[in-house]
Amino acid sequence: VKKPLFKKICIVGVGLIGGSIGLAARKRGLAREVVGIVRRPAAGREALKRGCVGRVARALEEGVRGADLVVLCLPVGVIPDAISRVSRAAEKNARVIDVGSTKKEIARAGKKHLGNRFVGCHPMAGSEKTGVGHADACLFEGANCFLTSDDARVAALWRALGARPLRVSPELHDAWVAKLSHLPHLLAFALLRLFEKGHPDLIVQSAGHLNPSFKPLVRLAKSDPELWEGILASNRGEVLKALSGFRKNLEELERALKKGDGTRLKLLIDRAGRSARELWPDE
Amino acid sequence: VKKPLFKKICIVGVGLIGGSIGLAARKRGLAREVVGIVRRPAAGREALKRGCVGRVARALEEGVRGADLVVLCLPVGVIPDAISRVSRAAEKNARVIDVGSTKKEIARAGKKHLGNRFVGCHPMAGSEKTGVGHADACLFEGANCFLTSDDARVAALWRALGARPLRVSPELHDAWVAKLSHLPHLLAFALLRLFEKGHPDLIVQSAGHLNPSFKPLVRLAKSDPELWEGILASNRGEVLKALSGFRKNLEELERALKKGDGTRLKLLIDRAGRSARELWPDE
Repeated sequence: VKKPLFKKICIVGVGLIGGSIGLAARKRGLAREVVGIVRRPAAGREALKRGCVGRVARALEEGVRGADLVVLCLPVGVIPDAISRVSRAAEKNARVIDVGSTKKEIARAGKKHLGNRFVGCHPMAGSEKTGVGHADACLFEGANCFLTSDDARVAALWRALGARPLRVSPELHDAWVAKLSHLPHLLAFALLRLFEKGHPDLIVQSAGHLNPSFKPLVRLAKSDPELWEGILASNRGEVLKALSGFRKNLEELERALKKGDGTRLKLLIDRAGRSARELWPDE
Repeated sequence: VKKPLFKKICIVGVGLIGGSIGLAARKRGLAREVVGIVRRPAAGREALKRGCVGRVARALEEGVRGADLVVLCLPVGVIPDAISRVSRAAEKNARVIDVGSTKKEIARAGKKHLGNRFVGCHPMAGSEKTGVGHADACLFEGANCFLTSDDARVAALWRALGARPLRVSPELHDAWVAKLSHLPHLLAFALLRLFEKGHPDLIVQSAGHLNPSFKPLVRLAKSDPELWEGILASNRGEVLKALSGFRKNLEELERALKKGDGTRLKLLIDRAGRSARELWPDE
């Protein structure tokens, strides 16, 4: 029998991401034991029932005892505090990782309290669905997972979960996801609010047959407000910077359209297409 | 043998949409004959080779002779003129339809030159790929197709192509697609221009594993500039109106984020989510 990657994994917060990590780790034999720490007893029962964890603990100290990997699957806003608490409770050789959507503040807290033992991670997977009820052992298959420092065992974990570990500095990560993920979410929020008054007749008829340019934005707009407020707040500087650049670009398009300057409009569309094709030729 | 819906279909402009209509019509036996009118000889050869049309004509008069259905698959900007030309050349009993992305100007021209014989159509299908080389007999399967007037035979055609015909006024159609399709394209154009300077290292590594919130916007940004300049110009009023509402919503989000007003930010995200869930519960 192959030796598992870890003796005991402790997952702090067993929702969609934590539950999916637990489920995959147990199915693939990546640890001898997977323990989950949950606040709500009902969530604990569901995590157990779905096989995401083998055991549930309420207290942090109890859960992390003997664990050589602690995975923080919490809202980004509370991760720095959790790192500090875990650093006092965890085994001295335990690695601690998180899966938060921003990395600068979190990596700083990790370095301060845990040094090299902390590795900030961000798997680019998930969906607008939340909660352990949607946990999926294949959630990370084919996804990139950004890592803020080099660590062979943590990289091996993500590979075993089906993801592609990519090393990136916390600063570059946050600038990058501001454009790739946080700004698109803001655009979806602003766009969907245009439908607050509804278009009942047409909507009822066209439901279920949305055109492909709009459907993904509907999904983004259904994201959890609590979670996303935290993500945006923790990456405020980069998000505002991306937003300001975006607004300038949008105003250029608007001006060309208003003036009826077709040549200019075509040029601006062409430039966007060039970036898209140069950077992502296969999409 | 069942009688086909039409004796002869003449497709004016055999690109992605025209080619797909021809391919599907011939495969499903919807007409005895399908003729294509193309400007470039090479496009005509490819349309024939791929089986999108049974015959190619260069002159409009020749192509529409004997046709009981003329399908205009041209850029929106030239459709009103094409309607006028077709009205002089076509058989007196021929129906004429178009597949343009906007309907107000086109339906007006149709009514003026052809009365009830013109039916404006807009199948909500297609992709950033253009040209007869991407023609696909299943392109319209499950798509909505908006029709600007009631016509049983034209509705039957779209049903036979796999689409769902939905009657809508040209005015409501244009307001609707401004929000559902034209504005999302503008957002994608403005967003992708943020990447003009590139992020080479990370990009090379992360290529092919883009996160799902960004991928659809990359595709939209690859849309044909010529085609989209025409679409946006022909729906300028509605697009500018949608854009102005969108900008207000985006500014509200930005203000809340700047001030660090988490409660307000959550409220705005929640409102967007409510619209999305109320109107499109199944997405």
